[in-house]
Amino acid sequence: MKFCSECGHPVALAIPEGDNRPRHVCTQCGTIHYQNPKMVIGTIPVWEHEGQLQVLLCRRAIEPRYGYWTLPAGFMENGETTSEAAARETDEEAGANIELGSLFALLNVAHVHQVHMFYLASLRNLEFNPGEESLEVQMFSERDIPWDELAFPTIRKTLELFFADRVKMREGGHQAGYGFHSYDIVRPMIAPREPD
Amino acid sequence: MKFCSECGHPVALAIPEGDNRPRHVCTQCGTIHYQNPKMVIGTIPVWEHEGQLQVLLCRRAIEPRYGYWTLPAGFMENGETTSEAAARETDEEAGANIELGSLFALLNVAHVHQVHMFYLASLRNLEFNPGEESLEVQMFSERDIPWDELAFPTIRKTLELFFADRVKMREGGHQAGYGFHSYDIVRPMIAPREPD
Repeated sequence: MKFCSECGHPVALAIPEGDNRPRHVCTQCGTIHYQNPKMVIGTIPVWEHEGQLQVLLCRRAIEPRYGYWTLPAGFMENGETTSEAAARETDEEAGANIELGSLFALLNVAHVHQVHMFYLASLRNLEFNPGEESLEVQMFSERDIPWDELAFPTIRKTLELFFADRVKMREGGHQAGYGFHSYDIVRPMIAPREPD
Repeated sequence: MKFCSECGHPVALAIPEGDNRPRHVCTQCGTIHYQNPKMVIGTIPVWEHEGQLQVLLCRRAIEPRYGYWTLPAGFMENGETTSEAAARETDEEAGANIELGSLFALLNVAHVHQVHMFYLASLRNLEFNPGEESLEVQMFSERDIPWDELAFPTIRKTLELFFADRVKMREGGHQAGYGFHSYDIVRPMIAPREPD
């Protein structure tokens, strides 16, 4: 940030009175411009048929991580709730018809000032309509998931937590079904793989 | 937003290519300025002694809702995790020494573009140091909580969910302790009470 969005004059970094960290403060009108983390919200859309479970993934048509696989997710917008954001992103990126479940995972990505959240979701059918941000949409069983070609660490971690919960459910450890999980990603984003 | 924070020129509302809603777009450099919801994070600091539980509340020394009671909470900052934000706010507003627990509640307040989250917390002692944003810090048993003088609907709902979970725990319904709760606040903020 270089200029005040209220009056157009240059801003300076300064610690406002009663505050304890530097903010962008307008040198003309005095407006303090706070910057805060953003939420990225998505779903884990699943299809269960004859005891087999598959998860929907989208292949990204945009940077960062063009061509890599992701769960449908995106930035939460003003005026919507977290569950509304999850449903909207699933519609926009996959054109999938889902029944939204409960919040499954909250993942902090502090080094990029983001909090990612993923909701459980059941697909009502297997008709998709990939949006502008997706090259394609595909269903994967656990063993077919392209683990080395996932777009972000939060996608990998969410899928790992999801399948770990299913193991616990099979073993009878989770009487009530899926749990709610919170996790902090502390390493930077995986570097893109070198060409072979 | 009236001016571009990158180049200082006026912005206009326009739907960028590939987008589906109006954004503030710079008429000079083309920068798109997205606006997203903010997170407000806090704790439910409790003290249990001889079977009696008390909750810490802070009386607000700032607007909005000056003089009303709140759980310690505030805007999450860039570079921190949700649990770090919860611990920091509890220190800044109450000067309380806590052991942070798990995430207890996530509350959407879509009409003010906010998501509120509250963590469980156990007080290590009853020594407080109210910060600049608090007139005073006080412990309340459930029946003494000033329910009509709480600052925000999310504070009331979080406390209601908390005490409801304790009833369930006493009745043996929650084997694993407190649950995780998600709730949408749909009404606008309570108007300040009229003077008697």
